[in-house]
Amino acid sequence: MKPAVSILKIGGGLIEDPKRLNTLVQAFANLKGLKVLVHGGGKLATQLAQQLDIPTQMVEGRRITDNDTLNIITMAYAGWANKTIVSKLQAEACNALGLSGADGNSITAVKRPSLPIDYGFVGDITSVNISFINMLLDNGITPVFCALTHDANGQLLNTNADTIASEIAIALSETHAVQLYYCFDKPGVLQDVNNPESVITHITKNTYNQLLEAGIVADGMIPKLHNCFHALERGVDTVSIGDEQMITHKNNLYTLLTLT
Amino acid sequence: MKPAVSILKIGGGLIEDPKRLNTLVQAFANLKGLKVLVHGGGKLATQLAQQLDIPTQMVEGRRITDNDTLNIITMAYAGWANKTIVSKLQAEACNALGLSGADGNSITAVKRPSLPIDYGFVGDITSVNISFINMLLDNGITPVFCALTHDANGQLLNTNADTIASEIAIALSETHAVQLYYCFDKPGVLQDVNNPESVITHITKNTYNQLLEAGIVADGMIPKLHNCFHALERGVDTVSIGDEQMITHKNNLYTLLTLT
Repeated sequence: MKPAVSILKIGGGLIEDPKRLNTLVQAFANLKGLKVLVHGGGKLATQLAQQLDIPTQMVEGRRITDNDTLNIITMAYAGWANKTIVSKLQAEACNALGLSGADGNSITAVKRPSLPIDYGFVGDITSVNISFINMLLDNGITPVFCALTHDANGQLLNTNADTIASEIAIALSETHAVQLYYCFDKPGVLQDVNNPESVITHITKNTYNQLLEAGIVADGMIPKLHNCFHALERGVDTVSIGDEQMITHKNNLYTLLTLT
Repeated sequence: MKPAVSILKIGGGLIEDPKRLNTLVQAFANLKGLKVLVHGGGKLATQLAQQLDIPTQMVEGRRITDNDTLNIITMAYAGWANKTIVSKLQAEACNALGLSGADGNSITAVKRPSLPIDYGFVGDITSVNISFINMLLDNGITPVFCALTHDANGQLLNTNADTIASEIAIALSETHAVQLYYCFDKPGVLQDVNNPESVITHITKNTYNQLLEAGIVADGMIPKLHNCFHALERGVDTVSIGDEQMITHKNNLYTLLTLT
């Protein structure tokens, strides 16, 4: 039987809320077995850019990453958010190690082609260094990835944290039974976005297509669910979407995704 | 015979100069054998604090680190400086891994007592996690430390990079033959601070005391040399001070420190 590994991605909204972040960090530290954390940090980068008078350009919900913006993201994600999370995990006796994709050459990417839209220093993942990640896990270390990769030629690249989580999950699924959790500020995928009690508790590939056609899944949830089904199709065992209650198991209100 | 390890500390002035940083990174990547890099990043933090209207308070050449300042340092040192250096080293085929003291619980510290001067979130090192650093070195990984430690209770602490370098050197000297290099923007310890050709090429414990009495070694050079002799007394094999030429061996103009 393959050893189990849990991969938890936490969204930007939870990182800036100290109380919710502490709950999450404690819950993650208490998770048994091998585990990997992946975090974003989008709102913090936007705030910092505003304070430094650097304009934030978004196209179709995605940030245009010029050189100034990349520096801000590197400071906010790999600096503040990553080290805050790592030091909190250490306080909970979880031997965490913060990483960008450049560290240990852990995740390489290519700069996205500048046509049709030039997103700037944004990366599409080309490889995950599984032997390095396994070496850390084998030594009792919990990797904590921020949303940065590199091109192996000296260029850091802004990379979607949901995608980093799913690509690590897929890569680890060759040798591990992988549970992938997407944790954000809502209790799951909602039938009615204004009603937090309308969680859709189970979505299959078939019902996903129905939800898409009905317009119930829309906007930022579409690429998120696309990532989830891509991970399931490539060998990840289970994918769940929910808030911090999903990890503490205080209730069972979250969305479970399966292929059938 | 103990295996050799080189520990290079690079000063703030070199990090902000892209050309000199590239020279240093290439020279460090080409160093044979086991190696560890330690970097500061002081001027960048000061610039960022100015841009964010956060006052920088210095007492006796040391930064007072309140919570806002700690966040800036974390962003500038662990974020921008560390990931810039790591990605450049990866481009030179050096498998670098960036670390704060919280990562892998690599360096613990205690917050400095608030009397007689309250320096805020400044740490004095209590332990270096040698088994973790050796595990990385054994796996072909080059640790790159920034000037942050943690108290193992969730608090990051601003910690002098010269001291981090000497404490890592001392800890590794139990099992390794350690060469410690302090690299900054001058070619060595100068007889006349305005004359870069007046490098004192060799300083012993005796001549150090003479230089102190004559006032030739003063200001920031005093704690730097104190660190050097402390390292030599605790088992580090050689300590050198110079600029990037010291690493490239293009000339032999640098300061070598020995006990006798």
